[in-house]
Amino acid sequence: MILKKKSVMTQAVGALLVTSMLFSCKPKQAGTVVEGDAAQKVYVAPGKFDELYMFASGGFSGQLAAYGLPSGRLLKVIPVFSQNAENGWGYSEETKPMLNTSHGLIPWDDAHHPELSKTSGEDDGRWIFINGNNTPRIARINLSTFKTEEIMELPNSAGNHASPFCTENTEYVVGNTRFSVPVGDKQDVPINSYKENFRGAVSFVKVDKENGRMNLDFQLLVPGVDYDLAHAGKGPSHDWIFFTCYNTEKAHTLLEVNASQRDKDFIMAVNWKKAAEYVAQGKGKKMPAAYAHNVWDEATHTGNSTMMNEVTILDVKDVPDVVYYIPCPKSPHGVDVTPDGERIVASGKLAAVIPVFSFKKILSAIEGKQFEGDFDGIPVLQYDAVLDGEVEKPGLGPLHTEFDGQGNAYTSMFVSSEIVKWKVDTKEILDRIPTYYSIGHLSVPGGDSKVPFGKYVVALNKITKDRYLPTGPELTQSAQLIDITGEKMKLLLDFPTIGEPHYAQSIPAEKILKNQIKFFKLADNKHPHAAKSEKETRVERKGNRVDVYMTAIRSHIAPDNIEGIRKGDEVYFHVTNLEQDWDVPHGFAIKGNNNAELLVMPGETATLKWVADRIGVIPFYCTDFCSALHQEMQGYVRVSDAGSNVPITFSIGENPAGTK
Amino acid sequence: MILKKKSVMTQAVGALLVTSMLFSCKPKQAGTVVEGDAAQKVYVAPGKFDELYMFASGGFSGQLAAYGLPSGRLLKVIPVFSQNAENGWGYSEETKPMLNTSHGLIPWDDAHHPELSKTSGEDDGRWIFINGNNTPRIARINLSTFKTEEIMELPNSAGNHASPFCTENTEYVVGNTRFSVPVGDKQDVPINSYKENFRGAVSFVKVDKENGRMNLDFQLLVPGVDYDLAHAGKGPSHDWIFFTCYNTEKAHTLLEVNASQRDKDFIMAVNWKKAAEYVAQGKGKKMPAAYAHNVWDEATHTGNSTMMNEVTILDVKDVPDVVYYIPCPKSPHGVDVTPDGERIVASGKLAAVIPVFSFKKILSAIEGKQFEGDFDGIPVLQYDAVLDGEVEKPGLGPLHTEFDGQGNAYTSMFVSSEIVKWKVDTKEILDRIPTYYSIGHLSVPGGDSKVPFGKYVVALNKITKDRYLPTGPELTQSAQLIDITGEKMKLLLDFPTIGEPHYAQSIPAEKILKNQIKFFKLADNKHPHAAKSEKETRVERKGNRVDVYMTAIRSHIAPDNIEGIRKGDEVYFHVTNLEQDWDVPHGFAIKGNNNAELLVMPGETATLKWVADRIGVIPFYCTDFCSALHQEMQGYVRVSDAGSNVPITFSIGENPAGTK
Repeated sequence: MILKKKSVMTQAVGALLVTSMLFSCKPKQAGTVVEGDAAQKVYVAPGKFDELYMFASGGFSGQLAAYGLPSGRLLKVIPVFSQNAENGWGYSEETKPMLNTSHGLIPWDDAHHPELSKTSGEDDGRWIFINGNNTPRIARINLSTFKTEEIMELPNSAGNHASPFCTENTEYVVGNTRFSVPVGDKQDVPINSYKENFRGAVSFVKVDKENGRMNLDFQLLVPGVDYDLAHAGKGPSHDWIFFTCYNTEKAHTLLEVNASQRDKDFIMAVNWKKAAEYVAQGKGKKMPAAYAHNVWDEATHTGNSTMMNEVTILDVKDVPDVVYYIPCPKSPHGVDVTPDGERIVASGKLAAVIPVFSFKKILSAIEGKQFEGDFDGIPVLQYDAVLDGEVEKPGLGPLHTEFDGQGNAYTSMFVSSEIVKWKVDTKEILDRIPTYYSIGHLSVPGGDSKVPFGKYVVALNKITKDRYLPTGPELTQSAQLIDITGEKMKLLLDFPTIGEPHYAQSIPAEKILKNQIKFFKLADNKHPHAAKSEKETRVERKGNRVDVYMTAIRSHIAPDNIEGIRKGDEVYFHVTNLEQDWDVPHGFAIKGNNNAELLVMPGETATLKWVADRIGVIPFYCTDFCSALHQEMQGYVRVSDAGSNVPITFSIGENPAGTK
Repeated sequence: MILKKKSVMTQAVGALLVTSMLFSCKPKQAGTVVEGDAAQKVYVAPGKFDELYMFASGGFSGQLAAYGLPSGRLLKVIPVFSQNAENGWGYSEETKPMLNTSHGLIPWDDAHHPELSKTSGEDDGRWIFINGNNTPRIARINLSTFKTEEIMELPNSAGNHASPFCTENTEYVVGNTRFSVPVGDKQDVPINSYKENFRGAVSFVKVDKENGRMNLDFQLLVPGVDYDLAHAGKGPSHDWIFFTCYNTEKAHTLLEVNASQRDKDFIMAVNWKKAAEYVAQGKGKKMPAAYAHNVWDEATHTGNSTMMNEVTILDVKDVPDVVYYIPCPKSPHGVDVTPDGERIVASGKLAAVIPVFSFKKILSAIEGKQFEGDFDGIPVLQYDAVLDGEVEKPGLGPLHTEFDGQGNAYTSMFVSSEIVKWKVDTKEILDRIPTYYSIGHLSVPGGDSKVPFGKYVVALNKITKDRYLPTGPELTQSAQLIDITGEKMKLLLDFPTIGEPHYAQSIPAEKILKNQIKFFKLADNKHPHAAKSEKETRVERKGNRVDVYMTAIRSHIAPDNIEGIRKGDEVYFHVTNLEQDWDVPHGFAIKGNNNAELLVMPGETATLKWVADRIGVIPFYCTDFCSALHQEMQGYVRVSDAGSNVPITFSIGENPAGTK
């Protein structure tokens, strides 16, 4: 018997779980209050546009998805950390480098927190960042192309969960490790030496104001516990960023029990401005570290992966006025900053109150050294000295809070499966609405920014059960759209999502619309294997590598008859889409390929590596229905024996093979 | 210059294209007629179920997706032919064999035609089949689990497009090659020997009535042209199946021009009953052929791939009364059989009429030898002798037809981008409605069966353009829901789809609901590496292979501390989900993995192969948010040097390492 000790969970939150289960077992219409006009409120008539883009992480799908609100319609799955057969992401030669890591190509990740770039604390619609949780990475997606343009691996991290959170002007995106691990030379240590050997590492990734390019400026070594979430300050708290930590028990096994012992864990307040200054002053130490930095080159339509070998480390032990702890009831999960930057709301997932801290009081407590002691040498501020107030009896299992710009806060309650609306000034509870079921994050458009858009709150739920037509044991994940324009919240719509909709951010459409790129200019295509007209198409052999410079345009592929390929050849089909109009992609497929397909946007070149593994005449074709004669858009490759003398020839139409 | 000859396309259908372009350039609301009650008609209130399941192929995504109608909500992406990071399909050890082919593991395909299994010509809700187009395959999905249970590769095929179409009682699912290729020993032939050496091959896959198990019964060798689509007869035409063929010019290059020369191509009528009888009589020849047959074992939760080496071939040249040709105007695409099985509707995509053929007349023309000649030795029936009538001026670019059971037919028009409703008996056009844009297939629930459900027609469109908030150069694919309950069709909803929604079939929900499996019984789990309780968890080394027998249950993984792994070890994490309730999956992720993640359903075991590539202490965790203490569901593996003496130990909680 492995598990001898009765779970603390059973004792501590047993009552909460029973409540949760009762919720889940309700008949499916019970408790659902739908106004008569809900249908009209979420209906977007054919040909009309949604009002908002919502970007939701795909959770364990590793991708990011764009939805329209209020319709809840899925507009696009943006491939980020995972291979995606639909458009060849992670399979084409150009995109493989984007998934490279210090462990080689990893075909997937677990993506949690989309974060829109900010200017003056407001969502600016330029980029969106998202974290890779399992392999610690931060990705940047360009919102003019909806393409992942950059992925930065983070060394010394494991479980990049408190990530990626932007400072007020996207000076930095910050990521903190969820799991502490051994950092430095001493790697092969017993797991039960956690307390001595394990540390956390906060990564500060600098973002170029012009092009968004990321650079791992430094890492701040912090105590070895688990870190969960973060939010940067704004306005008066601009220089600070706040992290939740749990497992301050420093347990390394059965955390369910062993990390739920202490009454309070911490909010870790980090003065990032001061830390950056120390680094600028040379207080950091260079340490060897292997991590990949992958950048998409727009001119060549190709990803490039660079392996980095060094990182600057700042140890909190060496810079005592950078980090302070704020005590926070049981295992805090979310930490959120009010639009004015004056208050910090922390949600202990096993706590019975929601504490709200005052940034002013934090500053004066630091000034006045109102400490109740220290943790791993870091001062712990007195709870009462920094408390603005507590929201009492908010519900069970508070997780996350966002704001509507009208002075109201909305907090998700996992265990009691509801959203609670409360007044920031008075901490008074104004309304509550059930969610189906077990809400994790919630999202108000602009709700973590200086200027919330409001209008809706989206519940991002963990359990789906009986909310949709069933699909066997594996069900869709689900979100719910709730109207917050009135005093009472109103449930409008259940809509399914791709992967776990771990967190989402929404933004008014006009902020994204203004920068849209509709196709790539062929004239600007600098891909080294582009064929920018049919005249440039050709087939070249070097040893057993064959490069096919190919074009696609409605409705033929050039060349479409290729001979002289030999069994065992590695053939690179470089397909350039010659179209110069919106929404005319061409696809490329060839039989017997052990690779993925291509989907090539107008003006772009993409490459499929194909091994000729069998003698015969092998067809290829366009996979994206592009015209009335799409079915005619096909060709053949002849593969002869390895020792064959059949010469390389290629042609289309009436041109004799090989004459071109 | 490659393309000297002016495209016939430009001359022949230039006017059509201009019309099409005008359609595409309209301001985005023009022509959209939406009734005031459309919002109510498509709105499914939170907690209520959709009325119908719609299964749409994912096109070049290689998957199948289930949607709810009328809401258009995506219920589930069912992974079939492509790897799927979300749930580890094609990455886990159990699912890799399902993607095996005679070319090895192929991570993707191009899936076109979902086909519900039929009993007495009616959709029975047991299974759904879908074709792999690039690597010729047919998959069968079990609709009680929504899981791909079987994939059969088809030899001698290339571009399995006219596939998979069921006979009236699912005696067979049938697939025909799109591209003819050399068949038999002589494989290395010049492409321009197409006329002499290339053949088509129709695969007849027998389906077991009890368990759905597929078996490639025989292949019928047919003339070397391109084959497009098919439909089986029903009622009086039960014994027959009809295929469209194009490129009867036998062109092998620039088909856009060279396959559009003849005024008429053919519908190929095949008496499958007779062909099967000939095979039963031993008229077929066994030929060597390599093709994979992959079957999911429900007891072990594991796919098994078997490489087959022989196929029975029946050559039409040897069985003269099995195949007949019906002339059909220009490049026929769809061929559809009326619910009563009496009429065959064929759509020539460059034709100006829709011919409707009479099955009775076909039989009597065969009887009376009313032939206008032969094609490759196969009798060509006289057009006028078999014609029931023509739908005149239907629109431009007719592709596909389905039926509503009220005597009406609905035909999609790619070039003029509309659906045309016409009366089967009189061929009179009753109504037309624009689609946005360039419709391919259309789908009426049950619309290809003996008993259409009707109510809606779904337009499956090829161009999206300005219908949704834009997402850079790559846009969503799109479908439209149209009400057909009245005399006039009414557009209700635009809804986006995953991949190209090439074709779809819909079925009333109650036919699927009755057989739903909600979780797998742990007691029935026969996975060889299952740990069916925490007592059974263990870690076993054999050389550099390490098997970890692991369990997951809210909220811990057992064991959660593992030591004694050495750099270079191949570690197999066999994770059994001990939960026995609906919608409680657990995920499993480990850092530095070069494989994909796991998503493990209750009662199931899944295996992640992981190579220990770095010395250190590596965390693992549950990726599917499962409880209030999900974030605590983590563990560590210690990886030591290859020569290390650290013994294998494993534990959870207060159990000392290694004692268990």
